Amino acid sequence: MGKTIAEKIFDDHRVDQPFDGVTVLRLDRVFCHEITTPTAIQDLVARGKDRVFDPDKIKAVIDHVTPAKDAKTALQGKVLRDWARRHKITDFFDIGRNGVCHALFPEKGFVRPGFVIIMGDSHTCTHGAFGAFAAGVGTTDLEVGILKGVCAFKKPDTLKIEIFGHLQPGVFAKDVILEVIRRITVNGATNQVIEFCGPVVDAMSMESRMTLSNMAVEAGATSGICRPDAVTVEYLWPFIKDEYPDRDAALADFSRYLPDDDAVYAGQETIDVTDLVPLTTFGYKPDQVKPVSDMAGTRVDQVYIGSCTNGRIEDLWVAAQVVKGKKIAETIRAIVSPATADVFSKAMDDGLIKIFMDAGFCVTNPTCGACLGMSNGVLASGEVAAATTNRNFNGRMGKGGMVHLMSPATAAATALAGTIANSPLFAQQD
Amino acid sequence: MGKTIAEKIFDDHRVDQPFDGVTVLRLDRVFCHEITTPTAIQDLVARGKDRVFDPDKIKAVIDHVTPAKDAKTALQGKVLRDWARRHKITDFFDIGRNGVCHALFPEKGFVRPGFVIIMGDSHTCTHGAFGAFAAGVGTTDLEVGILKGVCAFKKPDTLKIEIFGHLQPGVFAKDVILEVIRRITVNGATNQVIEFCGPVVDAMSMESRMTLSNMAVEAGATSGICRPDAVTVEYLWPFIKDEYPDRDAALADFSRYLPDDDAVYAGQETIDVTDLVPLTTFGYKPDQVKPVSDMAGTRVDQVYIGSCTNGRIEDLWVAAQVVKGKKIAETIRAIVSPATADVFSKAMDDGLIKIFMDAGFCVTNPTCGACLGMSNGVLASGEVAAATTNRNFNGRMGKGGMVHLMSPATAAATALAGTIANSPLFAQQD
Repeated sequence: MGKTIAEKIFDDHRVDQPFDGVTVLRLDRVFCHEITTPTAIQDLVARGKDRVFDPDKIKAVIDHVTPAKDAKTALQGKVLRDWARRHKITDFFDIGRNGVCHALFPEKGFVRPGFVIIMGDSHTCTHGAFGAFAAGVGTTDLEVGILKGVCAFKKPDTLKIEIFGHLQPGVFAKDVILEVIRRITVNGATNQVIEFCGPVVDAMSMESRMTLSNMAVEAGATSGICRPDAVTVEYLWPFIKDEYPDRDAALADFSRYLPDDDAVYAGQETIDVTDLVPLTTFGYKPDQVKPVSDMAGTRVDQVYIGSCTNGRIEDLWVAAQVVKGKKIAETIRAIVSPATADVFSKAMDDGLIKIFMDAGFCVTNPTCGACLGMSNGVLASGEVAAATTNRNFNGRMGKGGMVHLMSPATAAATALAGTIANSPLFAQQD
Repeated sequence: MGKTIAEKIFDDHRVDQPFDGVTVLRLDRVFCHEITTPTAIQDLVARGKDRVFDPDKIKAVIDHVTPAKDAKTALQGKVLRDWARRHKITDFFDIGRNGVCHALFPEKGFVRPGFVIIMGDSHTCTHGAFGAFAAGVGTTDLEVGILKGVCAFKKPDTLKIEIFGHLQPGVFAKDVILEVIRRITVNGATNQVIEFCGPVVDAMSMESRMTLSNMAVEAGATSGICRPDAVTVEYLWPFIKDEYPDRDAALADFSRYLPDDDAVYAGQETIDVTDLVPLTTFGYKPDQVKPVSDMAGTRVDQVYIGSCTNGRIEDLWVAAQVVKGKKIAETIRAIVSPATADVFSKAMDDGLIKIFMDAGFCVTNPTCGACLGMSNGVLASGEVAAATTNRNFNGRMGKGGMVHLMSPATAAATALAGTIANSPLFAQQD
């Protein structure tokens, strides 16, 4: 019987099967940030187990509240920093070199097709864009992972989502994943892995695939996996060029993880995106999705372009294209938060930061802060945000605040209009 | 009997003298930020006095925690924003257009020689650099100022501080003011106005004079005033060119506020800075000052370049000159926070931001945050900062943290060394 990507990765990494339906996997990576890992560290220390399974396979970053906003977050950073130094975790990224974990770690070449990755963060599924099995875990799993380099997972039932057709100009990966979640709902992939495939995904950049995979968890998925291909190889080439004679050899190697033709899926969705229009959320759940045109004119207090969903250089390029030479509305405040130091630096070299600042955007250092209402852009009660982030839960960006999720193009257009608006990149009249 | 600058300004602005030693002055400006003004606004609203004396003379900015870090600071911003809109205070600066108040308001041309300015902020004395009387006030004074455009002050006894000699390369205005405070102590000018004068001050840029005036309050002074001259006129010229036929006419007008030769001072200090070396603080009081060389090798966890004291373009130029082409120490984290959006933009155009980022600095959006331990760089307990800020009080940048105040050059050199170090701009061997 054929196998899915996740099943192949599980086969490759199985170290134990303590009982039916649960597999203990060897971990290639344990990613850490300063909000969830310090709890694990402090517990390990308290248990007399202050060890790490492999300092080279653990990667850590201070990204959620950075630089620290108060005594508590300063301490969280210090606990992670001291731990990284103590255990010689050399890939530790402090302020100035840091970035939003799910943007930073791929950028540094830490992800490979076939990897098993855990992190104490729900959007760990992002790394599935590389053909990896990457899942967010709780504190106990994180502790075991840090100590032993293993983690137990349920059988990876897979939902195959095939995307075909052609995206219109002005319609992006963010619109695609919002459409996916709208169709399958926030529980559509609970306890399942999503496998994204089809010609539209094949044609996407790694950045766009990360946007897709990133929001798999918003439909309940454990991980969101894209098939490794030549695009994957090209992105990773600077990091793997000493490991393979050429790109073809890398591609052949990664192809081990492609699903079999007769793989058995728990479910399947086929979506034609040819008529897809820019979308936005309207409620407090990510499956409450409408065309932007239906929401046009909705009052917005703050526009936010950033996060692990849409804070990459591709996103900033698109948003800057909309913003260039224009000014944000008088009644709005707008924030752009490049996802990593490298994204910031590249965006500066490319003239994008200048475009945003000239338009009236506040450009912050890389941080997750505003996305989850922790810093650098928290809403006041009653305020409304248009954001390129991933969650519109009640109070997500600040208690009593409302968040409308959208693409960077739509967010940029909204900043200019002062109310929710389609971008001029989207030409279709509807 | 001759008069000091402050006495001349008082004469010009007196609207009442209710009893001996107290004068009610007409206000030219009421400056506002989101930490202290919302309390005043809410009280005025509660009293049924939600009015402003003149929306054109009130200038407001969100600068202390920006963008908002939590529900409380988001609300503070909202209260100020809503008030500014309600009263048509057009010079209101929200994120993206904002900056540290004492850097932003001068940059926008809001200060003139002879002005009387209040703000609910202790470093309001900064604006004295323009030959204005500018003082920090409490909530009640702020409320009265907003409502009536007046404020009561005690008799402005003046301490004249004459600075002569020649500053060595690598010794800056920050070192001068630290030396002044070391000599006169933190109570040396309590309830007095400091008048800075002498050839060293005359030779200073407006930016450097603002650094001097900014820290007058650290010696207890109500305001720190520099004499208006051709440098003042040159800085202000873009804003006053329609008011005067030429620069000489402006200078002649401003000269009204120069002190009389026979002005009577409450005290006088004369300081020769020819042998002055770069200085830093060593304790929890701004008068605990030593040569940097005496503190060399002191452990530092975080370097901070920014604030109303030293976050201007001149400061960033000096720091970048030290940092260029180098990397910060592995053990340190370093933050540069351009004081305003315009400083950020100019520093980017001049290639300074690139220099800082390449060196490993975290570049934040303009904010007061870290200086007073409110956001964007708060220390953990036990941590040590080397900072270009103005206060080293116990816990100022975070509870249990230690702050060493110094110039941007010294802070930059410290970031590279990882411990307190003199900059290579300072050539003297000692």
